[in-house]
Amino acid sequence: MNDKIDLSAKLESFSEHWSPRTVAQFNNCDVMVVKVKGEFVWHKHDDTDDFFLVLKGKLDIQLRDRTVTLESGQMYIVPRGVEHRPVAQEEVHLLLIEPTGIPNTDDALTAAPRKLA
Amino acid sequence: MNDKIDLSAKLESFSEHWSPRTVAQFNNCDVMVVKVKGEFVWHKHDDTDDFFLVLKGKLDIQLRDRTVTLESGQMYIVPRGVEHRPVAQEEVHLLLIEPTGIPNTDDALTAAPRKLA
Repeated sequence: MNDKIDLSAKLESFSEHWSPRTVAQFNNCDVMVVKVKGEFVWHKHDDTDDFFLVLKGKLDIQLRDRTVTLESGQMYIVPRGVEHRPVAQEEVHLLLIEPTGIPNTDDALTAAPRKLA
Repeated sequence: MNDKIDLSAKLESFSEHWSPRTVAQFNNCDVMVVKVKGEFVWHKHDDTDDFFLVLKGKLDIQLRDRTVTLESGQMYIVPRGVEHRPVAQEEVHLLLIEPTGIPNTDDALTAAPRKLA
């Protein structure tokens, strides 16, 4: 991870949904790209905010009281402790940032394993 | 800062170079957009990595032993303690992430003031 990172090239290197790839580390965080489609699970992170930047497609981030809809070039940070569920009608490409070691579902039993790309 | 953030719209709201705008906070970090053109100063941050994602244009991040050239959709994280100088021949739009309160030049006397957008 000592050179520039091309996000499109990283995204082209895999096809699975809901399986984030760590492309860099920033301080104690994983910078990840992920492809998503369909509904994720409702979850929250009590100890970290959750960074979403849409690179391609259209993502609904459902909150309990409203939905934040993001398109390419738009971002949202889910504050810590806030329940949310990402939903994508069609495939969406995202940049995510979370502290290294945080399960993406907030539950180690159901979380995607950490993978490098 | 409780709603989605459109990075292009934020960038359209100002024209100054080397004057980052904080568009969101992620944990204890400022997420910023900035327009740059020309040469910045050589500097380093001893206590934080430095996150650069190019949204538009072409940026050279000069390191003491090489130059990392980034185009739109490419990112680089300058590790803490590593001297670097961003250089843009033409205007470049960037997404930056740094812990809140870190001077962008690593020197409070010469740093750009924190501004929200």
